[in-house]
Amino acid sequence: MDAIAQSELAAELTLQPVRRYGVDAAILFSDIVVPLAAIGVGVGIVSGRGPVIDPPFRTREDLRRLRPLEPEVDLAHVLETVRIAVGELDVPLIGFAGAPFTLASYLVEGGPSKTFARTKALMHGEPELWHEMVDRLADMALAALRAQIKAGASAIQLFDSWAGALSVADYTTFALPASRKVLEGTGDLGVPRIHFGVGTGELLGLMSEAGADVVGVDWRVPLSVARGRVGPGKAVQGNLDPALCLAPVGVVIEETTKVLLDAGGKPGHIFNLGHGVLPETDPEMLAQVVNTVHDWRPGTPPGEVAER
Amino acid sequence: MDAIAQSELAAELTLQPVRRYGVDAAILFSDIVVPLAAIGVGVGIVSGRGPVIDPPFRTREDLRRLRPLEPEVDLAHVLETVRIAVGELDVPLIGFAGAPFTLASYLVEGGPSKTFARTKALMHGEPELWHEMVDRLADMALAALRAQIKAGASAIQLFDSWAGALSVADYTTFALPASRKVLEGTGDLGVPRIHFGVGTGELLGLMSEAGADVVGVDWRVPLSVARGRVGPGKAVQGNLDPALCLAPVGVVIEETTKVLLDAGGKPGHIFNLGHGVLPETDPEMLAQVVNTVHDWRPGTPPGEVAER
Repeated sequence: MDAIAQSELAAELTLQPVRRYGVDAAILFSDIVVPLAAIGVGVGIVSGRGPVIDPPFRTREDLRRLRPLEPEVDLAHVLETVRIAVGELDVPLIGFAGAPFTLASYLVEGGPSKTFARTKALMHGEPELWHEMVDRLADMALAALRAQIKAGASAIQLFDSWAGALSVADYTTFALPASRKVLEGTGDLGVPRIHFGVGTGELLGLMSEAGADVVGVDWRVPLSVARGRVGPGKAVQGNLDPALCLAPVGVVIEETTKVLLDAGGKPGHIFNLGHGVLPETDPEMLAQVVNTVHDWRPGTPPGEVAER
Repeated sequence: MDAIAQSELAAELTLQPVRRYGVDAAILFSDIVVPLAAIGVGVGIVSGRGPVIDPPFRTREDLRRLRPLEPEVDLAHVLETVRIAVGELDVPLIGFAGAPFTLASYLVEGGPSKTFARTKALMHGEPELWHEMVDRLADMALAALRAQIKAGASAIQLFDSWAGALSVADYTTFALPASRKVLEGTGDLGVPRIHFGVGTGELLGLMSEAGADVVGVDWRVPLSVARGRVGPGKAVQGNLDPALCLAPVGVVIEETTKVLLDAGGKPGHIFNLGHGVLPETDPEMLAQVVNTVHDWRPGTPPGEVAER
């Protein structure tokens, strides 16, 4: 959070992966809770735990803590980071925001959760309060993304990291409408919209319908299967298991190639890990992944891509 | 672990849910790490964390720690629990064991994991060692289950709790063969075999093919969809989201009814939660769930099942 508050530093952190690996896009160095902190919701990042909200959101009174976001004021430092990064980059910058459901889960649970029990109890027990809360969070995410695009971001990614904890029915009723408000609300600005989650095998079609141009896929669903669920005219993003980056280099290259083969060498695939880089990853292994993707030509079988 | 070691007490804990709720089967009160502890692998249960294996398994040398299980000696107390419980029950007792992949993940990680990074690195980096390890764990699970059946269990459940962390390809190569050895290895004893996991939407067909008569389904996959993946002639088990048991009673009854409706009132459905009961659940809410299942008649819409 300290680094994010310093635009020059946050821009440098945004640029480093591009400089080191030669990847084809940069993503803004930030965190999904940044807009919440910016409007005065007490947010801390606890080492080994993640974002902590104290006190958590439990009642209608808590809605008052979610005032409208004024991006040019509240996120001035973030927008400055975008401008600095875009000025330095010769690849696109992806802006980002947390999706309403995932943000709401942090607010209600008070931090990361394995079960989302309080969140689910609230959405089912007090659906009106739930919908008011995620609607405010949708407005917040939408304002943050529109401002990032205007500052120079040429794509956006909406992170619904924990959507995969929901059943199809619960996602449809309690998460999708607010995410749709965010994604469709940036439609007039004409930038590609990436919709990301983990464990979302059953939700890929709904996440596509919510207004995405690209749907993130974790390693659990083969890309060839995911394409069918996401539907025609959309792209998929993914899906190397980040844990495999801890395997020997030959395995990493082979598994990277398998992802490319499964995507079929067809357009509409953004290669990525299926979730974030694990902290214990050797950074040089990521170079091997990037080089494999860049060197690969359709038709090359696994095991025949050389280590650079 | 202390309670499991005392057969009279473990039998009482096995019987209590049947006595309190009138459920249609009992499941042996035990833990998937019990056979590991019984052969001398150092296993501790750490509050708030789960089973911890110290030191963890990392090299070929560690294979020596997995000696063959002699159930009549090593699990004498567990088999006595089975005999006492079966003597008291007038519903079936389900025996159980941990599946080789999930047990191996505890051995390699040294405890619960979010990412299974070391486990995946080992399976890909040292596949021969991996296969030897899970083959020994398969023999262990098979011996434990056969002994439970001979002691009176009239069904078995194989818990592959964390299989859902694997891609389809990794499950097929690194987990399925050992689970198949367990499930097919009890086939001659003629008891139904339940194969359980969480987050296994993409794996349901493979878990069925591994030799299951019943496949557990978590709340992420509608049962009507799961039936198609599991295939004909098999039953499904599930799939109320356990987190919903923290919602108001009207919601719990309605959501329970929706599961029954989605199962289509057809045979081949064992109602269950999609994962374990959350510790913060009001036990009386579980009575409402059980009563709803018992009172429901095909065709009754959600919201028209009364609270008892």
